[in-house]
Amino acid sequence: MSQPPLSRRRLLLGGGATLAGGGLAGAAAGLALSGNDSPAVSQVVEEAKGSENVAFYGVHQPGIEDAAQAHVRFLALDLKPGSDVEHVRRLLRLLTDDAARMMRGEVPLAANDPELPALPSRLTVTFGFGPGLFDAIGRPDDCPDVIRNLPTFATDQLEDRWSGGDLLIQVCSDDAVPLSYALRRLTRDARSLATVRWCQSGFNPARGSEPAGTTHRNLFGQRDGTANPPGATTEFTDTVFSTGPDWLKGGSMLVFRRIRMDLDDWDDLGRPAKEMAMARKMSDGSPVTGGSEQDDPDTAAVDQNGFPIVAQEAHVVQATARVPEERMLRRAFSYDDGPSADGKPDCGLLFAAYQADAAKAFVAVQTRLAEADAMNEWITHIGSATFVVPPGCAEGEFIGQALVG
Amino acid sequence: MSQPPLSRRRLLLGGGATLAGGGLAGAAAGLALSGNDSPAVSQVVEEAKGSENVAFYGVHQPGIEDAAQAHVRFLALDLKPGSDVEHVRRLLRLLTDDAARMMRGEVPLAANDPELPALPSRLTVTFGFGPGLFDAIGRPDDCPDVIRNLPTFATDQLEDRWSGGDLLIQVCSDDAVPLSYALRRLTRDARSLATVRWCQSGFNPARGSEPAGTTHRNLFGQRDGTANPPGATTEFTDTVFSTGPDWLKGGSMLVFRRIRMDLDDWDDLGRPAKEMAMARKMSDGSPVTGGSEQDDPDTAAVDQNGFPIVAQEAHVVQATARVPEERMLRRAFSYDDGPSADGKPDCGLLFAAYQADAAKAFVAVQTRLAEADAMNEWITHIGSATFVVPPGCAEGEFIGQALVG
Repeated sequence: MSQPPLSRRRLLLGGGATLAGGGLAGAAAGLALSGNDSPAVSQVVEEAKGSENVAFYGVHQPGIEDAAQAHVRFLALDLKPGSDVEHVRRLLRLLTDDAARMMRGEVPLAANDPELPALPSRLTVTFGFGPGLFDAIGRPDDCPDVIRNLPTFATDQLEDRWSGGDLLIQVCSDDAVPLSYALRRLTRDARSLATVRWCQSGFNPARGSEPAGTTHRNLFGQRDGTANPPGATTEFTDTVFSTGPDWLKGGSMLVFRRIRMDLDDWDDLGRPAKEMAMARKMSDGSPVTGGSEQDDPDTAAVDQNGFPIVAQEAHVVQATARVPEERMLRRAFSYDDGPSADGKPDCGLLFAAYQADAAKAFVAVQTRLAEADAMNEWITHIGSATFVVPPGCAEGEFIGQALVG
Repeated sequence: MSQPPLSRRRLLLGGGATLAGGGLAGAAAGLALSGNDSPAVSQVVEEAKGSENVAFYGVHQPGIEDAAQAHVRFLALDLKPGSDVEHVRRLLRLLTDDAARMMRGEVPLAANDPELPALPSRLTVTFGFGPGLFDAIGRPDDCPDVIRNLPTFATDQLEDRWSGGDLLIQVCSDDAVPLSYALRRLTRDARSLATVRWCQSGFNPARGSEPAGTTHRNLFGQRDGTANPPGATTEFTDTVFSTGPDWLKGGSMLVFRRIRMDLDDWDDLGRPAKEMAMARKMSDGSPVTGGSEQDDPDTAAVDQNGFPIVAQEAHVVQATARVPEERMLRRAFSYDDGPSADGKPDCGLLFAAYQADAAKAFVAVQTRLAEADAMNEWITHIGSATFVVPPGCAEGEFIGQALVG
């Protein structure tokens, strides 16, 4: 586990603070406080985090660059039969306005009860366009082929109930309460023009459960997302954001996959087998050949008998980008829809990959994984949906305006 | 909103702390730090909260006195046909051991992957016994009549799929990840002896979203739980815990209700109507007749025309205990199972009331509410389950041992 990043601010009111680690004792011993001698303040005030918010307007949509929140709902809508460009424009204008307001901690236009959205807890709303939306607006040819015709993979066992959709709304927050409110109001404002195709809920570790910046664990116990490009870098921009056509510049492509995990079998597998399947250690995500979490496994390393330590089928070997165009931002969440009547788990991963061009990134990588990923023994892709993610917009505009007009 | 309680501890490493409020500036200005002059430590280290845990062993079961966590799953199991006292004993012994280990942040016996439960985030596991368990162990007459035969109320629209159960497992955590793991392992260890009747997921605002000690808001936007007895008081003990028979001493009774909210209509209702239905203000939960959140509405107050300000049908008037035996601990969570295909919300409250005697508390209060609660216009009870909650146990014992033997 990496060192706690020093990015959050707190107020210490007295000398009673518990030390976070022995190595800090020397620094902390020098703390002194004047001006208040009440015993009640010999502790630390926790700054309430609910009011933190993310800007809606900008070059890119929110909910991509932002560190993945603790909660997500992916909502896929289908436009009602007969929808045309005017309907879509009206829908997007309305939902854009709703999203901008609620991300600021405000109610949608004409709504009551300012308390409900007041603590957005880093609420983000992100829109994606499926093939059906391009058809409805009379621009079917503008839908990239990979979004309309994602290849099928040999290991797929896709179910309609988790797949497809004309319009995706990804809503994230560190707090399930404002998330519930935002999704509900967006759905309400959409329902005269669209129906709900599916809604999938996911989660990551709670905000503050581990130090900020720690890579999340998925339900297998693996650190998930280690290979993501660092935020606010050229590498991130090149990986995630499209350079054109004009209406897509600064946008992205989202491949969403519902990946079921066979947790019963995984639980019972020995640790060495788990680590060899991944080529990373369960404890801290570091390569089985040594190093730290951010290092790649050394595929040339051999054991004392001269045999390779890292199997070619290890997940990380197959999943790692071999050319820059294969890189993706994996912004995944776990799901757990509760046990079946016979007590079997219904758990897995809501895999959401943002990339500049899904044909060159997701398709290339998933083709390899479908053929030779050791993890295929314990995972099954059961849902799939692909969306064009338009760029962000300025105040007064709406998401997709350059396309929908 | 009340003042932030000073119960959390943090470590301040430098002079760059943001002030939580202007009134604290004087105190904070005196902060000084010696022993470290790296610019990186001019901020505050956030103590990771995941490692916080709650003691399993004790006079009472966990998950009752503890401030309601951010997440819950209520899992109701049915014993398999033919179960007898020996099966029940084996089940409870196993689940008790699992619960105690996972609440400490450890894996269940013989399980792998210490990372998964390592950050319990105040994980609690609480067991409740339904009538079927008393029958299986051959002690049907020990099941209190109110647990076996909760009266029906005129406003009930109960559905089997949300009701009943032989054994309840309430699992709570501030983090959905350890909660998922704990519930999954408990279910797995139970499934040779029991089947899943239902599983219901709920949430409250995230830990840290508002200052600790703030009364949660439900999805109506109301502060919910204002009337709860203060923790660690005689009032709390008298309200919640049974004084006998011996096997139940220190235990409780749990009435669980799934209460659907009609949020579409509620959203559109004007603020004055909402506040009159409750007799409390939406903003801060204070009575419409003035005062602060903890005050009761003044039912004798009249307006300028001499009419009563508080309606007799106001929820708080009907729900408030009229004798001490009517008091309950309301430990409620919101639910949101996502929109239906036509975009209608499926939201409400998982109402969990702990009390010494449900016949004198829940039944008395709900009888009044079913007759005359103004909130009945927007709520419907659609699920109901009642459980005896045995007392806690000591290490080496199991939950229910005094009953099951």
